[in-house]
Amino acid sequence: CVVVSDTAMFAPGIPALVMGLRGMLYSEITIEGAGRDLHSGLYGGVAPNPFEALVRVLADLKAPTGEILIPGFYDRVLPPNPEEQAAWGRLPFDVEAYRRDEVRAERLGGEGKFSVFERTWSRPTLDIHGMPGGFTGPGSKTVIPARASAKVSMRLVPDQRASEIEQQFQAAVLKLVPPGYRCSVQTLSLADPILVSAESEYVRAAQQALQSVYGAEPVLVRSGGSIPVVALFTHELRVPVVMMGFGLPDDGLHSPNEKFALSSYYGGIEAVAEFMGRLAQV
Amino acid sequence: CVVVSDTAMFAPGIPALVMGLRGMLYSEITIEGAGRDLHSGLYGGVAPNPFEALVRVLADLKAPTGEILIPGFYDRVLPPNPEEQAAWGRLPFDVEAYRRDEVRAERLGGEGKFSVFERTWSRPTLDIHGMPGGFTGPGSKTVIPARASAKVSMRLVPDQRASEIEQQFQAAVLKLVPPGYRCSVQTLSLADPILVSAESEYVRAAQQALQSVYGAEPVLVRSGGSIPVVALFTHELRVPVVMMGFGLPDDGLHSPNEKFALSSYYGGIEAVAEFMGRLAQV
Repeated sequence: CVVVSDTAMFAPGIPALVMGLRGMLYSEITIEGAGRDLHSGLYGGVAPNPFEALVRVLADLKAPTGEILIPGFYDRVLPPNPEEQAAWGRLPFDVEAYRRDEVRAERLGGEGKFSVFERTWSRPTLDIHGMPGGFTGPGSKTVIPARASAKVSMRLVPDQRASEIEQQFQAAVLKLVPPGYRCSVQTLSLADPILVSAESEYVRAAQQALQSVYGAEPVLVRSGGSIPVVALFTHELRVPVVMMGFGLPDDGLHSPNEKFALSSYYGGIEAVAEFMGRLAQV
Repeated sequence: CVVVSDTAMFAPGIPALVMGLRGMLYSEITIEGAGRDLHSGLYGGVAPNPFEALVRVLADLKAPTGEILIPGFYDRVLPPNPEEQAAWGRLPFDVEAYRRDEVRAERLGGEGKFSVFERTWSRPTLDIHGMPGGFTGPGSKTVIPARASAKVSMRLVPDQRASEIEQQFQAAVLKLVPPGYRCSVQTLSLADPILVSAESEYVRAAQQALQSVYGAEPVLVRSGGSIPVVALFTHELRVPVVMMGFGLPDDGLHSPNEKFALSSYYGGIEAVAEFMGRLAQV
């Protein structure tokens, strides 16, 4: 089996095994209007504006309820199985504190009819990350740019297939482009979602190892992130994967001043040694 | 009277007097979601996305027909008077060549039921010039930014008032912002539109001067651009303005390799001298 430790504990003292990862489709949509940048004084009123076309396309990809409006997008989405759903319901979690202190928003976004764990682990997403083009400096400039782009990613969940979603997304975007504009959709990254079977004897060995080191039963969770190589191990090499990591939620992952706790460092050493001992008995 | 020469001839050999300028409201809309940038893997599905709110607001400010959907926006818009309309109809103009060679677009944007001269001279506009925020570099980054902005300008026409449109625009934007987001609208520039009366004896003197120098009757046109100081001369100083300029359409205004034709240089000198002679008789 392959052990991946690019994951985290659920909380200090609560070890976790990650049983699923979301996949990813990252795309850049580019829309072109006129053949050159135009001044809004002389040409405003007749110049096609690619930002105008782009905001229409983007607004129509998602309903205000959070539902993604790409035909076929949800066809293969599987709900978490009943055991997972029950286990997630037992996790210690204060949604109000999470909104206020962690997300720091007036209200959470997305599909209100699903729980936070479902929305971040077992539901697909569509997000805009940036819209390059035109004038973005301080102050005002009245250019109507020839082209404008949007960086858009979708997190994918079992049993969506990244290459199928790629086709559906491109078709949906091209269909929404108003007449008179040229549009291209470029895929920047593509990764399938994956699920780990809870029946795996390697997962069982990891559960026992974590239990014995931490004195607490590890929780079975998923992660909303994507680790593309895990999908390759699973689908191409067909090797069982165990995602047993020792990060903590406040590590500041990929951020300035990132940390790794000494307790995780020593706990990780002990848990991995314990896991190897148990593997010998598999 | 005040003579402003920041305008152009209609074509080589066809002098023009500019009888109207569009005004301008330039605004920056900023929408905030979460209190910090969030990673779409961990938070995608619950993170509010300010770009999502922004594209909805922007898409709802304008109909696909080009009509601007700000309540009250068109209340004071005056159509060109019948003489102007007739004069514009006589201007030598090939709309197909303009689309293909000048705008270089598959089709012109804006309100299809109005002529190109109306759309660029006597109809107001709303354009997006850039959308700062998030990740705009090459490649992919999965940040869901805390805030995103849009630079939006409106060209205004008689008898719209810039400060009134400013209020209407702000109210319309704030009303369209989805719940859970904070929004601010900052005005970056503001200028009233203006019209010059064709009855002015100064305009008459300019017409005669141009006629005698160029041997062709000057056409009375408008400009879609904004020269804010002209509105100040007109509304604050109450001084008649004559907009008699000698630029040519292919000068490449404000662009690399801008030129000014020698014929315009000498023609301008002669026309201004001629104009001053006639002013002495006013």
